[in-house]
Amino acid sequence: MIAGIIGATGYAGAELVRILSGHPHIDTLSLASVSYEGDRIEKVYPNFLGRISAVLEKPEAVIAASDVVFAALPNGVGEPYAKAAVEKGIPFIDLSADFRFDDDEAAYTAWYGKPYVHPELRKLSVYGLPELNRKRIQELAALASVAGVAAQAGNSAGKPAPVIIGNPGCYPTATSLGAFPALVRGIAGPGTIIADAASGVTGGGREPQPSFHFPECSDSVAPYKVGAHRHTPEISRNLAFMAAQSDGGKVSAPGLIFTPHLAPMNRGILSTIYIPLAESRRPGGISPGVPRPPSKEIAARTDEIRRVYTDFYKGEPFVRVLPAGVIAATNRVRQSNFCDISVHLETLGTTLIIVSAIDNMVKGAAGQAVQNMNIIFGYDETAGLNTVPALF
Amino acid sequence: MIAGIIGATGYAGAELVRILSGHPHIDTLSLASVSYEGDRIEKVYPNFLGRISAVLEKPEAVIAASDVVFAALPNGVGEPYAKAAVEKGIPFIDLSADFRFDDDEAAYTAWYGKPYVHPELRKLSVYGLPELNRKRIQELAALASVAGVAAQAGNSAGKPAPVIIGNPGCYPTATSLGAFPALVRGIAGPGTIIADAASGVTGGGREPQPSFHFPECSDSVAPYKVGAHRHTPEISRNLAFMAAQSDGGKVSAPGLIFTPHLAPMNRGILSTIYIPLAESRRPGGISPGVPRPPSKEIAARTDEIRRVYTDFYKGEPFVRVLPAGVIAATNRVRQSNFCDISVHLETLGTTLIIVSAIDNMVKGAAGQAVQNMNIIFGYDETAGLNTVPALF
Amino acid sequence: MIAGIIGATGYAGAELVRILSGHPHIDTLSLASVSYEGDRIEKVYPNFLGRISAVLEKPEAVIAASDVVFAALPNGVGEPYAKAAVEKGIPFIDLSADFRFDDDEAAYTAWYGKPYVHPELRKLSVYGLPELNRKRIQELAALASVAGVAAQAGNSAGKPAPVIIGNPGCYPTATSLGAFPALVRGIAGPGTIIADAASGVTGGGREPQPSFHFPECSDSVAPYKVGAHRHTPEISRNLAFMAAQSDGGKVSAPGLIFTPHLAPMNRGILSTIYIPLAESRRPGGISPGVPRPPSKEIAARTDEIRRVYTDFYKGEPFVRVLPAGVIAATNRVRQSNFCDISVHLETLGTTLIIVSAIDNMVKGAAGQAVQNMNIIFGYDETAGLNTVPALF
Amino acid sequence: MIAGIIGATGYAGAELVRILSGHPHIDTLSLASVSYEGDRIEKVYPNFLGRISAVLEKPEAVIAASDVVFAALPNGVGEPYAKAAVEKGIPFIDLSADFRFDDDEAAYTAWYGKPYVHPELRKLSVYGLPELNRKRIQELAALASVAGVAAQAGNSAGKPAPVIIGNPGCYPTATSLGAFPALVRGIAGPGTIIADAASGVTGGGREPQPSFHFPECSDSVAPYKVGAHRHTPEISRNLAFMAAQSDGGKVSAPGLIFTPHLAPMNRGILSTIYIPLAESRRPGGISPGVPRPPSKEIAARTDEIRRVYTDFYKGEPFVRVLPAGVIAATNRVRQSNFCDISVHLETLGTTLIIVSAIDNMVKGAAGQAVQNMNIIFGYDETAGLNTVPALF
Repeated sequence: MIAGIIGATGYAGAELVRILSGHPHIDTLSLASVSYEGDRIEKVYPNFLGRISAVLEKPEAVIAASDVVFAALPNGVGEPYAKAAVEKGIPFIDLSADFRFDDDEAAYTAWYGKPYVHPELRKLSVYGLPELNRKRIQELAALASVAGVAAQAGNSAGKPAPVIIGNPGCYPTATSLGAFPALVRGIAGPGTIIADAASGVTGGGREPQPSFHFPECSDSVAPYKVGAHRHTPEISRNLAFMAAQSDGGKVSAPGLIFTPHLAPMNRGILSTIYIPLAESRRPGGISPGVPRPPSKEIAARTDEIRRVYTDFYKGEPFVRVLPAGVIAATNRVRQSNFCDISVHLETLGTTLIIVSAIDNMVKGAAGQAVQNMNIIFGYDETAGLNTVPALF
Repeated sequence: MIAGIIGATGYAGAELVRILSGHPHIDTLSLASVSYEGDRIEKVYPNFLGRISAVLEKPEAVIAASDVVFAALPNGVGEPYAKAAVEKGIPFIDLSADFRFDDDEAAYTAWYGKPYVHPELRKLSVYGLPELNRKRIQELAALASVAGVAAQAGNSAGKPAPVIIGNPGCYPTATSLGAFPALVRGIAGPGTIIADAASGVTGGGREPQPSFHFPECSDSVAPYKVGAHRHTPEISRNLAFMAAQSDGGKVSAPGLIFTPHLAPMNRGILSTIYIPLAESRRPGGISPGVPRPPSKEIAARTDEIRRVYTDFYKGEPFVRVLPAGVIAATNRVRQSNFCDISVHLETLGTTLIIVSAIDNMVKGAAGQAVQNMNIIFGYDETAGLNTVPALF
Repeated sequence: MIAGIIGATGYAGAELVRILSGHPHIDTLSLASVSYEGDRIEKVYPNFLGRISAVLEKPEAVIAASDVVFAALPNGVGEPYAKAAVEKGIPFIDLSADFRFDDDEAAYTAWYGKPYVHPELRKLSVYGLPELNRKRIQELAALASVAGVAAQAGNSAGKPAPVIIGNPGCYPTATSLGAFPALVRGIAGPGTIIADAASGVTGGGREPQPSFHFPECSDSVAPYKVGAHRHTPEISRNLAFMAAQSDGGKVSAPGLIFTPHLAPMNRGILSTIYIPLAESRRPGGISPGVPRPPSKEIAARTDEIRRVYTDFYKGEPFVRVLPAGVIAATNRVRQSNFCDISVHLETLGTTLIIVSAIDNMVKGAAGQAVQNMNIIFGYDETAGLNTVPALF
Repeated sequence: MIAGIIGATGYAGAELVRILSGHPHIDTLSLASVSYEGDRIEKVYPNFLGRISAVLEKPEAVIAASDVVFAALPNGVGEPYAKAAVEKGIPFIDLSADFRFDDDEAAYTAWYGKPYVHPELRKLSVYGLPELNRKRIQELAALASVAGVAAQAGNSAGKPAPVIIGNPGCYPTATSLGAFPALVRGIAGPGTIIADAASGVTGGGREPQPSFHFPECSDSVAPYKVGAHRHTPEISRNLAFMAAQSDGGKVSAPGLIFTPHLAPMNRGILSTIYIPLAESRRPGGISPGVPRPPSKEIAARTDEIRRVYTDFYKGEPFVRVLPAGVIAATNRVRQSNFCDISVHLETLGTTLIIVSAIDNMVKGAAGQAVQNMNIIFGYDETAGLNTVPALF
């Protein structure tokens, strides 16, 4: 199978190249880059020398050549390519924000400053967070039957319908997966969820900018776009969808406060999520006044909730609910498609603290895109994604 | 004047050495180290070669030689030295947690696992956060009159009473200063304050440990002691004291949730603080549902609160309330005694977000200790502390 | 096939675990650790959760269970395990220095302070730098015929003789590969070779130590063991072997000066190697006095030598001689088994400068060990090692 | 006294601002910036808030207002300002390369691609490496007498002649100071000196560029401009000048090979310098063949040479020859004007290895410029520069 990547020389695009080059069902990569058209990818990224070699083409040529197209482009420029892919009848997996808001064009426009170019494409698009929308992705790809056929035929790809994937943002992925079980299983009480998160510098992309200039960002932690980051509405929508899946919809859509920070590391998103605890889940016996170290009951309640989380994600190939005593950290998921989640209660016993960690370039971008491709084509969902997280 | 430092070879002790070596009223340093007794400080820290030279003595010798004693020791071992200093009649500035809890021995014991050795010393001790307790520090040092004498006599030190300072923790300093104006001026409404904070690795001290081994902590962000960090009760107490100072005590003591993270940087504490906003301060016109970018009213309300903060800290030599458009970050206060504070509202309009940054080794430890000494002796509070934050 | 790893919880051991877990011919890992016997590897390294799971056994049990044994132990303790493996009749791949000096026990003892335990084992051992000793490794493994059988039988392993591999050090690998073509092809003139090299902190191992404590080594470059590093004799021996392979042995064994530096990065060795240029290779027309920018002739001579290097390493699966304009750097080979080499001349025209970069944990340790296993068993030499270098 | 800085918003300019703001003889700073004219410096660098405040003017206004002018501009644009300062009769301290080559315009033009604008200014200029040229600087400033007058008058500045300082490059400073005693005292034998050096990223300036984008340079060491760096001729000239000072000029001008590397740190230059040892200095008793650990004689010879170095730099306020057992490293001189030098011999006994470390922004740029100002005006040479190196 031939996979096409438009925007192959940006960081997310190049990571897609790297991951797909090791994918068992991809035979050939077809790459496009506006900035480097005509150059070879291994000239732009000498890391690829001897492993990956391809001339960078025009986007149109890539769409024409491919069985599936990934777009790793700036927001607001990829819709024409999505349309072309759909017209050709092949899936289009978009890593920008353009297809993350479904038919809520107003939210998209409010935050991204542009209207939809082809609003009708949203009938074919789905927000590609597999742990939330796997079934919908499969349905849209019309794979219920085709996948079986593909499986019978060995590795040969089925022919999915021309679905469009709005591949999630990095912060929304980490944060939503951390909150999901609490909302669906009624652990969350009413109120506002706070996600305080940190990102590695690759999250800012490949273009040199003052904020990402080594002397300006090394050896420092800095919040940015406080109260104004574009991932806020995306996370907020996810939380509402999740709450709607709670038993009888009894958990209402929570408010959301989200603050991103830049940390001096290459990769990783860490989201520390504060979720109000349902009354029924609160440990008792906590006196008011100056807090005390966590009691045995707090530990017990934490274990209880951890079990709910573990159970909830049973069978999910990329979510690891960590055992007691292990706290999620970005270097535990480095270069893997894992989302690590650790479960905590604080000393007041009123709030669940979930720590969620992903590699922003993998589960937060390119890896999740490949996961979506695997779902669409009926492949093993871990195909090409079974990396063991690098230790250092 | 002779300043003594017990525990001079730990990180906080060595930073004290460095700061005091440039202090205009300190003529001589007398240093003690259990681990390196008999060695020279410049052998332990070759950075000091040609600038600072001293043999490391026994603590008793240092107390005997000094006009003021700093202790940068592990928790639970410094009380006998405090007693000796008091008996000699000189101030004792303690950087451990031993004197941070005043007469709430129960809280101290619950978190630090030890009883007070000399409970009676708390009559002479004060929690040394100058922005909260400056008057009390001055009173205890009985400097109302003496300072005037000292000032008349030029730089020569007055003879303060043998006050003991419980020098604050690094997280409590950053977090408390960030919350202080909101609590005192009634900007905070009822509810729980969440402080999500990150620290540089020097916060873990000089002793090599797996968590601080370069390959384990570089290129990663990792929470630790979630819901169980010893600075929680210290911050909580501060918030209660501040709320008690609100107009008519109308702000009640808030709950506190505090989560520390380790970040791959040498210095710095960044505390991102979420404070429920009093109804009267909330911007109107925010629709429920998917959030929208901040409105003009949010910006206006933010400006309003920033003005309160600016006014509140007017005259404080080390607190900088940043102008609109500048967000606090650890590299803005590097190697200075500043606490930088930036003021934000999030898109829901219900919560104030304060970002507070300090250098953990300066305002979070050694610098604040020197600031306390300056207050005790009636010196200019910025003496020895007027460093311009290093740019990189 | 079952691969055993003794010392599986050190950094090199754990990297072996990670690489071998993805090796197409390894079905099972059998792991030993003295420090963590009885624990699970995924408890020691939570990165492995959900991917790799094994109880840490005694070394003896691992040898008994395995078809090949890797030892990632401190110097001087592994010989008894080597003996046991040999007696069982299986290959033993040793990552320590114990088998790197063949029958020159004097050199080993002078630098490592210990005699050989079982000197006779050196009859079965070979220094495992494949680019230097591939044939010898194959001969010792007696695979000339067996490999063919193994290949016919598909993936099933041949039965090599019980060869012992002295897996090279990280600095020696990078430096030797950089100097090899110059020595063999007569580009090097008589004189001393200087290798000035830098290593990432994982090179210091997993044990916390002051030198590798984050605040002591971050944001700094520091030489160590200047003129006294144990890799000096290993590199020196390699250079002599290579010179002996020169046409008619006309290049004499060069002197060697080697200086290691610690750099604030996790992985990587960069060796900048200064090699005196044979008279015949020197560009002409360089005036004495203040140097001038490189002339066209310098560029032409550089291209010429680069072609020799490229030709020399033609067919080597893991050596990349970089094209003109690309300089070797550690982040170009990150997490791969590549050795990148770039070729330069300086302005005087007397000295060849070779820059050689490897990942110290892969080509400098675990990856090269796996490469040696592949050679021994007649597998494709890149099996399990075809990672594309991570971009960040 | 009023100090003017042209190019105040670049990194070297801003570091000058920071250092001069604490200088005891500077009352006022007058700052110019083309990019930010009309803005305030504390808006460009919020680190300065509350400490330093000034509007950025035109260069002409700064020259008109100042008693001394520093220029931290790109190469090739500052000569008109030098001319204006000279015409006004005030010293001009230039941090670019424009005045580093004296009357060797050919060397300057060959490497920097431009002719001199006002060649006649070189009659008034001197290469400002105080340890090499202090007397010449003093003479040009005509301070032999004036300084005495200034000293008598306390801190009030003398009126030096309008000397121009070509402030040295960062690599040349570290490397030249490391080689100086060996050349002058006849420790160096004939042959080529190799300087293998690493720089922090601030050396690349404030302008964001791909090479200095965090994800491209963090966690990696990378050589650059191998055999083609502009500091090569500057170092080479210095070495020749130093050799000419040897006893009877018996040491001839050495050849030079210089290779710079970029290291993932903010500040610092480390230069590891290989100097051929004069026959008379070589330890005996070293057998050919595989090297052995350093003998006692090597240690003794090293001590001997270290004593020469220590003696040579006796009285120099900013050069620290480190005691045996301490190796120079960039984090030992952080934020200070020190040059740390450690002395080593390698196992062959033929080559002296000098490790020289400076802070590239201080002794390598702004600090040295202030040192030159101090010399010109007859101030204590350490005025404003007596920082204790930051520990972290």
